[in-house]
Amino acid sequence: MSTVKLVADEDASNEVMSVYKDIRQTRGGDFINNFWRALAVNPALLSSTWYHLKSIMSVEGAIDAKTREMIYIAVSTANACSYCVHSHTAAAKAKGMSDDEHAELMTIISLAASTNHLANGLQVPIDPEFLAE
Amino acid sequence: MSTVKLVADEDASNEVMSVYKDIRQTRGGDFINNFWRALAVNPALLSSTWYHLKSIMSVEGAIDAKTREMIYIAVSTANACSYCVHSHTAAAKAKGMSDDEHAELMTIISLAASTNHLANGLQVPIDPEFLAE
Amino acid sequence: MSTVKLVADEDASNEVMSVYKDIRQTRGGDFINNFWRALAVNPALLSSTWYHLKSIMSVEGAIDAKTREMIYIAVSTANACSYCVHSHTAAAKAKGMSDDEHAELMTIISLAASTNHLANGLQVPIDPEFLAE
Amino acid sequence: MSTVKLVADEDASNEVMSVYKDIRQTRGGDFINNFWRALAVNPALLSSTWYHLKSIMSVEGAIDAKTREMIYIAVSTANACSYCVHSHTAAAKAKGMSDDEHAELMTIISLAASTNHLANGLQVPIDPEFLAE
Amino acid sequence: MSTVKLVADEDASNEVMSVYKDIRQTRGGDFINNFWRALAVNPALLSSTWYHLKSIMSVEGAIDAKTREMIYIAVSTANACSYCVHSHTAAAKAKGMSDDEHAELMTIISLAASTNHLANGLQVPIDPEFLAE
Amino acid sequence: MSTVKLVADEDASNEVMSVYKDIRQTRGGDFINNFWRALAVNPALLSSTWYHLKSIMSVEGAIDAKTREMIYIAVSTANACSYCVHSHTAAAKAKGMSDDEHAELMTIISLAASTNHLANGLQVPIDPEFLAE
Repeated sequence: MSTVKLVADEDASNEVMSVYKDIRQTRGGDFINNFWRALAVNPALLSSTWYHLKSIMSVEGAIDAKTREMIYIAVSTANACSYCVHSHTAAAKAKGMSDDEHAELMTIISLAASTNHLANGLQVPIDPEFLAE
Repeated sequence: MSTVKLVADEDASNEVMSVYKDIRQTRGGDFINNFWRALAVNPALLSSTWYHLKSIMSVEGAIDAKTREMIYIAVSTANACSYCVHSHTAAAKAKGMSDDEHAELMTIISLAASTNHLANGLQVPIDPEFLAE
Repeated sequence: MSTVKLVADEDASNEVMSVYKDIRQTRGGDFINNFWRALAVNPALLSSTWYHLKSIMSVEGAIDAKTREMIYIAVSTANACSYCVHSHTAAAKAKGMSDDEHAELMTIISLAASTNHLANGLQVPIDPEFLAE
Repeated sequence: MSTVKLVADEDASNEVMSVYKDIRQTRGGDFINNFWRALAVNPALLSSTWYHLKSIMSVEGAIDAKTREMIYIAVSTANACSYCVHSHTAAAKAKGMSDDEHAELMTIISLAASTNHLANGLQVPIDPEFLAE
Repeated sequence: MSTVKLVADEDASNEVMSVYKDIRQTRGGDFINNFWRALAVNPALLSSTWYHLKSIMSVEGAIDAKTREMIYIAVSTANACSYCVHSHTAAAKAKGMSDDEHAELMTIISLAASTNHLANGLQVPIDPEFLAE
Repeated sequence: MSTVKLVADEDASNEVMSVYKDIRQTRGGDFINNFWRALAVNPALLSSTWYHLKSIMSVEGAIDAKTREMIYIAVSTANACSYCVHSHTAAAKAKGMSDDEHAELMTIISLAASTNHLANGLQVPIDPEFLAE
């Protein structure tokens, strides 16, 4: 797998190492997962993606950190991104998602998929009650 | 729009009216949205879909009702179901989703979509650290 | 809707009219649906698409004509193609799909979507028993 | 692969073993595929998914068992579910899908995908002739 | 359509008007399309989305502006985003996409979709020759 | 992986070998990738797919060969086709895609995905300015 060569620490340019360092500091650990090592083939792509993601996921907001990861899993599942499902399930567990929450998340994702396909399969017209204007 | 004729109350069989009645009681209101009126062309499909959904969405679990609707929006967006985005956004608002939470939900969905496509576009190999076994 | 101007009979070039004529003869009717009128902005695109589709859908094969249209609905639903769901539901009905078959098709599509999302959401490893080699 | 630990027979609770037993009886064989072993991390999720699927796929209806599996393959392909394509191709073959039917199924799925993308790419407006109301 | 109220100039806050002004200056015209007016319900979402997109689409890079819009159409088509197909087709035309290029783009998108579904439907194993490492 | 047995040269019928020969001549090399070896289980499917693809991808048109492959990558990424992303990234590189172009392609695909999900998540109404008629 992978259409690009992953960038190990010993092959990283200064620009890449600077982002790797910020990832390690932000997360409080030495592990750099393959997603970042793949993006690192292009330092600008690595840098813009990391700082964009960090500005959203590492900042306090209206939705707590665990729930954000669960929403991330939902989108990644529907988009069939194997890598993302794996990495964000690990992240959600690290942020406190219990086994029961994980199972219930799967139940809701699967229910949503089933009614999404029913509504699209029957092409149900949108009720005027649902429109914002 | 719609590939089937929506079933109005006056055209509904006893079997359909019985489900409509349960929808109204469960939700505490008279409104029956088009999704159910489309499924009603086949009473068995209406009935099994409604009671399956009710058993998941109307029961207390590990995830609160508002968050469930937000997860539903996430899946429906990724699956490009216009009807479902409309109906579950209305439901999430009815269950207390604030404008800030809505905007943050959109931010996370959109971020997830962007990294989903990066991971799939580069075919990043899954880190062994993410595997459950 | 539409990012191109639909080509009416009176605006059609000879090349386009020749394809329109073959559509009418093959289907035994005067109606040309918008899909072909949109493709007609580029006669080569219209021609190659029509003859490719005709060679598959109008020829007898291992799967009967009605079932082919039902498979078409399944794919179109999962790909969220509103136009295609509408046109192939009409085609399936014209080829004999009953209301019960339509409802059962929706049930299977919706079940498949739900287990697709469960398998992707849990990233279930493929059993060696399922591999052809 | 897998974000959860698969549940082997020797690690299964009574509740899980009872579902495994019903799967074996219904299918007439000892094999339990990984999908169920993954769901088994949550006995309620396993149980509700199995009995829901069984009530649809094991009961006689308007569409024969082989065709149902072929529709399942179509949806799973469009939803990019590798696991599901593998498991339902095996199931379809077990229910009598011939090599010719398999190849023709692929042809129709691939044709549908191509016209789905054309209709979505040109945003073709839906013909009034296709509407149910 | 729309799950939020679009923000007209007369209802816009100073923060929103400042982004609207930058959109107008960057594009050299008065027109603000609905996408931005919908995001404007949350000024931070509007601002971060606009400046992120501007930093990518308005800067010279390795791929010319017209081709970028054509790639945008390809992704939007596969993701079934009606709004995006409409807006980026208009943008591509404004940047010089000819009718022939538009038709050829549709041909390639449609071919890709068809072979995507064949490869996923048969679960073709990746050739080692294609791997970067 | 694979739901069908790949057809090696020594197992190929005359009909299959004739297509393999044309693939080798067209591409100027001995390598036949797994996609064709999987389709070869059904000679008619192999033949129609190859000659259809060849008629589009090997002929000069309005879009150059490298850009066509990049568009192919974009669609394959959004459709989550691992095989196709791998094979067309290899093809794009063989036709001159630079590392910078590859990174920029990923940036645009990822941006498109993010705004696709925003437009679908908010169900933004299409501006009349974007309609062709």
